[in-house]
Amino acid sequence: MKESFRIGIAGLGTVGAGVVDLLQRNGALIAARAGVPIEIAAVCSRDRRKTRGVDISSYEWVEAPGALLGAGGLDAVIELIGGQDGVAKDLCERALSRGVSVVTANKAMLAHYGYDLAVLAEKNGAALMYEAAVAGGIPIVKSLREGLAGNKISAVYGILNGTCNYILTVMRETGRDFADVLAEAQEKGYAEADSALDIDGLDAAHKLCLLAALAFGVRPGFDSISIQGIGRVAAADIASAHDLGYRIRLLGIARREGEKIIQTVAPCLVPEDSMVGAVDGVFNAVCVESDSAGKIIEIGRGAGAEPTASAVVSDIIDLARGCGHKIPAFGLPASGLAQAVQAKNDLLPGRFYIRLSVIDRPGVLADVTAVMRDCDVSIESLLQRGRDPDRPVSIVMTTHQAAQGDVRMAVSRLAGLKAACESPCLMRIEAL
Amino acid sequence: MKESFRIGIAGLGTVGAGVVDLLQRNGALIAARAGVPIEIAAVCSRDRRKTRGVDISSYEWVEAPGALLGAGGLDAVIELIGGQDGVAKDLCERALSRGVSVVTANKAMLAHYGYDLAVLAEKNGAALMYEAAVAGGIPIVKSLREGLAGNKISAVYGILNGTCNYILTVMRETGRDFADVLAEAQEKGYAEADSALDIDGLDAAHKLCLLAALAFGVRPGFDSISIQGIGRVAAADIASAHDLGYRIRLLGIARREGEKIIQTVAPCLVPEDSMVGAVDGVFNAVCVESDSAGKIIEIGRGAGAEPTASAVVSDIIDLARGCGHKIPAFGLPASGLAQAVQAKNDLLPGRFYIRLSVIDRPGVLADVTAVMRDCDVSIESLLQRGRDPDRPVSIVMTTHQAAQGDVRMAVSRLAGLKAACESPCLMRIEAL
Repeated sequence: MKESFRIGIAGLGTVGAGVVDLLQRNGALIAARAGVPIEIAAVCSRDRRKTRGVDISSYEWVEAPGALLGAGGLDAVIELIGGQDGVAKDLCERALSRGVSVVTANKAMLAHYGYDLAVLAEKNGAALMYEAAVAGGIPIVKSLREGLAGNKISAVYGILNGTCNYILTVMRETGRDFADVLAEAQEKGYAEADSALDIDGLDAAHKLCLLAALAFGVRPGFDSISIQGIGRVAAADIASAHDLGYRIRLLGIARREGEKIIQTVAPCLVPEDSMVGAVDGVFNAVCVESDSAGKIIEIGRGAGAEPTASAVVSDIIDLARGCGHKIPAFGLPASGLAQAVQAKNDLLPGRFYIRLSVIDRPGVLADVTAVMRDCDVSIESLLQRGRDPDRPVSIVMTTHQAAQGDVRMAVSRLAGLKAACESPCLMRIEAL
Repeated sequence: MKESFRIGIAGLGTVGAGVVDLLQRNGALIAARAGVPIEIAAVCSRDRRKTRGVDISSYEWVEAPGALLGAGGLDAVIELIGGQDGVAKDLCERALSRGVSVVTANKAMLAHYGYDLAVLAEKNGAALMYEAAVAGGIPIVKSLREGLAGNKISAVYGILNGTCNYILTVMRETGRDFADVLAEAQEKGYAEADSALDIDGLDAAHKLCLLAALAFGVRPGFDSISIQGIGRVAAADIASAHDLGYRIRLLGIARREGEKIIQTVAPCLVPEDSMVGAVDGVFNAVCVESDSAGKIIEIGRGAGAEPTASAVVSDIIDLARGCGHKIPAFGLPASGLAQAVQAKNDLLPGRFYIRLSVIDRPGVLADVTAVMRDCDVSIESLLQRGRDPDRPVSIVMTTHQAAQGDVRMAVSRLAGLKAACESPCLMRIEAL
């Protein structure tokens, strides 16, 4: 038996320090479960003197990530630097090329280069592990790659970004507008100062394409995801959704449609009494629809030092137990990963929510409903909120099942009405 | 590389036939994921001629489970016979003794003999796998044993019996009484004709002690679980819980209290807007509280041929991939599994729900509240339902945090009041 499982950690930011802390705090338990102690052989980060809340004085410090591989006899490199390419990708490639396994939380890198890295890992008999890249502490990568491995999976979707869910939750609870809540979240440290990755839906899209790759046995296909963030969700939408019995969630949805795959990230209305509707605050929720297990939902903290460290350490334990190498990165040998044919999101029929801001003058409702009729979109409900001839009022509609092309055509015509004050807000209603 | 992974299946009831069906239906996908085709080498069941909806004509038929091991070169035995001991246990012992791995869905056997079987497996280098024994299609065994392996776990609890949850859900939706709903569920096939295992909480307790063993690294300890079924939950309780903002769920709860472990199965009140409160019908939900990942919830179908087959096949794939053998049955080497010290459930303070049936005469409320005061239990709310001097009425109370011993004393005194018509109903309120 080996005396220890030797790792090198690159990146000692929030997550890196969290991993060191967890390995120190639960070291005996982790050694018992892994069958061997986990030894931090070397660490590397930008600034050696930074205060991190963990004692790293007993580990070898190396100046550059690449030098970790010189630490000799490493069993795995833990890449927690982040960033789509550059130093992080370079380190992973170098490690895998030498047959050293990689554990990473880097969703952006995997979304873009996951297939290439999986090929490299396989060629060199190394493992590529990334439980921490999707939904933080929720072991959803393992559930898809192993726990549901007997199933044909038809859809995977959910709340994949805690920051967005937190903002949408506070908007609903306080009635305040997006920009206002975002500013406060940034002030309090709940959202990054540069929160574009979260708010614009890119972070959710990174995770979604990894989930889709695992679920459908395809190469991660980030470029074909249709992405819309939450920046245009207004307090009026939250309130209208509430009146209609819905909540607004930023959902990542990947669905198999025949031989094609549809991937979207967008704010959607979900029934308030659905499981996903009940997930408030910083929590993530991932749903999997499969032919044998049926529908599975996993909920937990999607970000933060501790949940992410939990996921990183579970991968390290898997490797130390001798399992990590046995399971291909995306659940199938890389050669078996198809290049997914992406279907146009426009093909998906559905029910929709439309909010218009119009000048409240006689005949405006007749104009609106005529547009809907002409575009072949059947209205399920229509609310007019407020009544004031001098100021814009909201007209909120939900549709029956309709072709997405027809609905987009209707929205485009509604935007052209004389009474329209701003371009309409359109969201899908997802009956989860 | 091996040409196939050879299994023998013992038991072709609902689950057994489901496993055969899934292996046939998704055979190509499963072979790709496992890295090798899964070959059903031999099968065995009571009646060869029974119609099962799957074609078993190409598999070797053996007359007795033990004879499966004669089929030569078996990689694993799939035990789906059921029953706490007898044939099922005998087969598992024989297989493990010969170093042949076992996959089983048999929660009763594992609850009683899980530790002995784990020792036997380890001694002979075989794996003991049982994802299907807990919560059907939800990969919760894997999540605990692997996905959360870096965590100290403080509690695991949830809805572990779909039949009970279905009955409680229908009672709430229809206002009907327990016996009535059970009879209908049996007629429709949603509940077994002999449903005592479900209704009395034993099935949930079997699962709970496996979850506790995995979570806390202890030997499964079925005998120390305090178990109460749902047979005494009345329509009046469901209605009162609803009025108070709660739902009634049969919960299995295992909690670490210092060096001790408390395990209970009992109907409880949970907030209706909690995640567990939102889980209706035949679904199961398992929550894990851990030091690093925080709170994780997994929801899915807890029973039925297909979800159970999904779990069995995931274990088979794990074995075929070469991972199953690497991970101890309960997450720690058997020698490391402590004999848990079980704390008395009575030690757990909490909030409680009490329903009394009393003759509505002057002074009865004064008597009731005096009992509560004398026992040092502080009342949070008190409702009197109905008012009719000739017939019993319900008095429903919820308490503030109180010592369980004090509450039990109060209930015992309330039962002795002259006005009392039947023994009071007592349930814990769990703020999940």
